[in-house]
Amino acid sequence: MSNERETGLVLDPRYDVNGLITAVVTDADTGEVLMLAHMNTQALSLTRDTGEAHFWSRSRGALWKKGETSGNVLRVVDMRIDCDQDALWIVARPAGPACHTGARSCFYRRVGTQGLERIE
Amino acid sequence: MSNERETGLVLDPRYDVNGLITAVVTDADTGEVLMLAHMNTQALSLTRDTGEAHFWSRSRGALWKKGETSGNVLRVVDMRIDCDQDALWIVARPAGPACHTGARSCFYRRVGTQGLERIE
Repeated sequence: MSNERETGLVLDPRYDVNGLITAVVTDADTGEVLMLAHMNTQALSLTRDTGEAHFWSRSRGALWKKGETSGNVLRVVDMRIDCDQDALWIVARPAGPACHTGARSCFYRRVGTQGLERIE
Repeated sequence: MSNERETGLVLDPRYDVNGLITAVVTDADTGEVLMLAHMNTQALSLTRDTGEAHFWSRSRGALWKKGETSGNVLRVVDMRIDCDQDALWIVARPAGPACHTGARSCFYRRVGTQGLERIE
């Protein structure tokens, strides 16, 4: 990895072979991890331009504005990128449950010693 | 995706074509996102068995215990899995800086309007 990408101040995302970067979203108020998804260059541009999180749906093969149909948009409060610029951390205020199951967070199950335990 | 995987209580990670699942690590005390990495089935087993985070290094093609050489291990406090079981959220107590650059978190740069801004 280039040193410039790691320590410099130029946004230079390291997209994978599918043109995607991983994005993790946390709740600005609770700090909870809400979801993990992927962005292509267009989703990242739209997120920066509109202040609302956009992703690339790998299963549907389509651009996707979070909350487009449910109304549960994610207002971006802060955005950071990691050392090798292949992951984004988005701090957001969710308008509603982040998970399509209706849970506040997609991470609604704990990995316990015997299996999973539902949290909420 | 199967409904059982989404709502059930059986740990059934959905590994990608490379046999990996994404793991995001947050600091148990500050809530900060520390790093994002990947686990294969062996790394996940070792993490559960030892209580210290293990990953699969895609660049080195090798199993990797975080802090193995630096001493900056990650003690796992809580572990959760997301709705489609292709991502893990690990809450941990870091023994030192999580980033190989020496930063507390790998996400030490903000994505600003003009470029990146160093945070610490």
